[in-house]
Amino acid sequence: MTIDHPSFGRIADDRVILFDTTLRDGEQSPGFSMNLDEKLRMARALEALGVDVIEAGFPVASPGDFESVRRIAETLSETVVCGLARSGGKRDIEAAGEAIAPAKRRRIHNFISTSPLHMKYKLRMEPETVLELIASGNRAARNFTDDVEWSAEDGSRTEPDFLCRCVEVAIRNGATTINIPDTVGYSTPDEMRAIFRMLRERVPGAEKVIFSTHNHNDLGLAVANTLGSLEGGARQIECTINGIGERAGNAALEEIVMAIRTRHDKYAYSERIDTPKLLGVSRMLANITSFDVQPNKAIVGRNAFAHESGIHQDGILKNAQTYEIMTPESVGWTKSSLVLGKHSGRAAFRDKLSALGYKLEDDVVQQAFERFKVLADQKKTVFDDDIRALVDDETRDHDRIRFVSLDLIAGSKRPAQATLELKVDGDIRVATVDGNGPVDAAFRAIQKAFPHEATLALFTVGAVTEGTDAQARTTVRLEEDGKLVDGQGADADTVVSAVRAYVHALNKLLVKRVRTEPEALSA
Amino acid sequence: MTIDHPSFGRIADDRVILFDTTLRDGEQSPGFSMNLDEKLRMARALEALGVDVIEAGFPVASPGDFESVRRIAETLSETVVCGLARSGGKRDIEAAGEAIAPAKRRRIHNFISTSPLHMKYKLRMEPETVLELIASGNRAARNFTDDVEWSAEDGSRTEPDFLCRCVEVAIRNGATTINIPDTVGYSTPDEMRAIFRMLRERVPGAEKVIFSTHNHNDLGLAVANTLGSLEGGARQIECTINGIGERAGNAALEEIVMAIRTRHDKYAYSERIDTPKLLGVSRMLANITSFDVQPNKAIVGRNAFAHESGIHQDGILKNAQTYEIMTPESVGWTKSSLVLGKHSGRAAFRDKLSALGYKLEDDVVQQAFERFKVLADQKKTVFDDDIRALVDDETRDHDRIRFVSLDLIAGSKRPAQATLELKVDGDIRVATVDGNGPVDAAFRAIQKAFPHEATLALFTVGAVTEGTDAQARTTVRLEEDGKLVDGQGADADTVVSAVRAYVHALNKLLVKRVRTEPEALSA
Repeated sequence: MTIDHPSFGRIADDRVILFDTTLRDGEQSPGFSMNLDEKLRMARALEALGVDVIEAGFPVASPGDFESVRRIAETLSETVVCGLARSGGKRDIEAAGEAIAPAKRRRIHNFISTSPLHMKYKLRMEPETVLELIASGNRAARNFTDDVEWSAEDGSRTEPDFLCRCVEVAIRNGATTINIPDTVGYSTPDEMRAIFRMLRERVPGAEKVIFSTHNHNDLGLAVANTLGSLEGGARQIECTINGIGERAGNAALEEIVMAIRTRHDKYAYSERIDTPKLLGVSRMLANITSFDVQPNKAIVGRNAFAHESGIHQDGILKNAQTYEIMTPESVGWTKSSLVLGKHSGRAAFRDKLSALGYKLEDDVVQQAFERFKVLADQKKTVFDDDIRALVDDETRDHDRIRFVSLDLIAGSKRPAQATLELKVDGDIRVATVDGNGPVDAAFRAIQKAFPHEATLALFTVGAVTEGTDAQARTTVRLEEDGKLVDGQGADADTVVSAVRAYVHALNKLLVKRVRTEPEALSA
Repeated sequence: MTIDHPSFGRIADDRVILFDTTLRDGEQSPGFSMNLDEKLRMARALEALGVDVIEAGFPVASPGDFESVRRIAETLSETVVCGLARSGGKRDIEAAGEAIAPAKRRRIHNFISTSPLHMKYKLRMEPETVLELIASGNRAARNFTDDVEWSAEDGSRTEPDFLCRCVEVAIRNGATTINIPDTVGYSTPDEMRAIFRMLRERVPGAEKVIFSTHNHNDLGLAVANTLGSLEGGARQIECTINGIGERAGNAALEEIVMAIRTRHDKYAYSERIDTPKLLGVSRMLANITSFDVQPNKAIVGRNAFAHESGIHQDGILKNAQTYEIMTPESVGWTKSSLVLGKHSGRAAFRDKLSALGYKLEDDVVQQAFERFKVLADQKKTVFDDDIRALVDDETRDHDRIRFVSLDLIAGSKRPAQATLELKVDGDIRVATVDGNGPVDAAFRAIQKAFPHEATLALFTVGAVTEGTDAQARTTVRLEEDGKLVDGQGADADTVVSAVRAYVHALNKLLVKRVRTEPEALSA
């Protein structure tokens, strides 16, 4: 059986469509918000990784969301760019349609809740009204593109007969992909398998569409539920890098893909992921959001192939397969991450940036190169992660507040004192303040030089690379009126790194877009 | 069907035994090693949580492992204390038997590989030899206790007929629990279900024993494989807190238990876990090992119930069940973690320590109380995590090196300079050193005051609590000759906190036990 798909043409029955929602479901969870540049960088990396569809955002939610979907639509050349919309929202669908218009391949993804609980308490609608909105939503979406996806929010808790009716209406009104999310992470692999079997058997027109699965990890079952769905006939997988997303997150792309590859004897599906890029994309996301994965995270965690580093497993030495079901190299782990030194020139630096997935303007490369030379003078060896931290720190446009200098006295014998210079809208401001320790003093100095209401919600420092001369990468999370923003800084001096991160977060807060009610953002 | 078990008596057919291996499989992964005090604290918390069996270590592996199993055996009153041993190791089984001897309820867990790959390349043994060692190992273990577990290492990749023969031999020679681990995390839920069904149908004597499952998460399937095993007839679950363990870790206890509770309609099993203690135990482990779980970790991650914090989900407000399949309170989340202030007395402080699971000597309480008063003067509010950090910092005996004072000059305008005082074996040593930033300068000063070979492998700072006056909790990982140790420090001053962590790690390195080859440590 093959399907003729508006974006992919004829699709073989074993082909699985990878739909990445890192930039939508992932980005909307607390602490994982990204700015436009960060989203563009992730989108390019995801396209290079080989995902088929990128859900780029929810255009009606805010001008910032609209803009980032539009810019991603302009930027990508192969991947389908998808915008989210509510089935019942006329403006939603128009905004999604306009935002994805520049894309070579484009999709509108409209959704509405179908479970008794959601219809009664969240939507406060009768089932017949929901059916009408499914019809009108999908018809409206077809005005903008032939590639239309419809989702039954809380689908796994929807009454089966009603779910069949909803899916039938969606198909009859133009949906070409039907997604059944396990919105609250409640389902089991057998149940997901049964849902897709039922839909394919019972719904008229089911043979013309792609069924899609979208699983949350609240009970630790997201990957298993995804594989169960494939067995039931789903052929699109919605997932995120590192499994980020609402609450306990979504199924992790890297785990699903490697499960399919490793157990191809059982899961005989094909996809186009360039698996040696998995680790790099995971790291890029961790750098952007400043949340490292756990050491024991499957595939991309530091310990996932721990026998590679320091621990010499006798079995591994005799035969790697005794404890390894995939090679570290197949997902991007390599032994050497050493790259550049103080004698490296601009061309080598530019090549390295390109290998790390950056595409930057010349003047940004130049600024980053200058900071690289300073760093290379301070450090014996400069690692990939050093370069990432440095470039991430440099590629921030439109900042109203800039760090100029910091002078510190501290220790356990006397109160810490910080003298800080900031440039605010072009003017130099200086503040000298005491505090509990150097970081506290420096942060109080920022408050004095640039008074603000935001409060510190999180502060972490992670060494970017090994050795006492490592650059410190710092994250500062600020909270204001329930809005959270994260800033990142990198510097050989921990406290300077912390100040850079705080200033970065403040700058983000100054341009922080106002989102619509989060109510609308679930799927 | 009921079973008469040597430790638990008559067991109903729906009863699932929770076997926690946080202190063995979890502890042996890189960066997760714990000292004796830390293991005792975790063991007490696990007993209070209601786990049935604690695998406390691998007694033959080192004197330190032996000692910690023995001390845990002396300490616990209800929980079965289990020691690991190789089936073929006579000394293994004797050491395990001696180490668990003080326990009221005790188990020896012996294991040997049974897969073609492991027998040929790792053991270099014929199948018949493996069968002989299974027989002798289980007979030897029965000399020490009637509660004997046997594991088929790499069992999920073992040829079915041979697996049946192995299990039959183990049962005939006295094993009362039969564990089939998915050692490399390769299996699927259906496959695990089928293995246990087969064993229960085909092996003579299967009706007299408890079958056990032990799943690794290399493909993200550990929890699903555990549930599949239960459906196949397994009635013991091996798991760890936070899912720590070799490589991608083990199935997470908190996820399995909440899957059973939440989906009791489908998984109608009973266990004795006091689920509101789950978050506390998770946090305790994170504090001890200094690895926080990801924000999107199921059940215990910061975002797992994110609508609770700042994000106001419209649906949640209308009816919590729209997006919540369990209540945050059921797993230990509460809104208020505020505890003590500057006016709190010693009695309140002692009560709080007890509520946090600490049982400490009077002089340690006194020292911790004095530091608490200093902290309470510096901070407006003192949170549970502040207390934990402070006590963890205080409860370190036998330290050869002690931090005395630090004086710092730093900032972006000149090289950082640190003047450090340490007390080494009772003598004061002072060093003044320049560096790249204050942390680098301070670490170089430690090297100068106490020269050592170890190199810095990891350095992280996490704010213990919110607000700019937070105590910083720092982790320093040192590496020497392939050995890794982690030190922790807490102080309102980040750099002082970092120095305390470095000194802690150095002290650990000075007493670091030598383990046997890691080859022996897998199961």
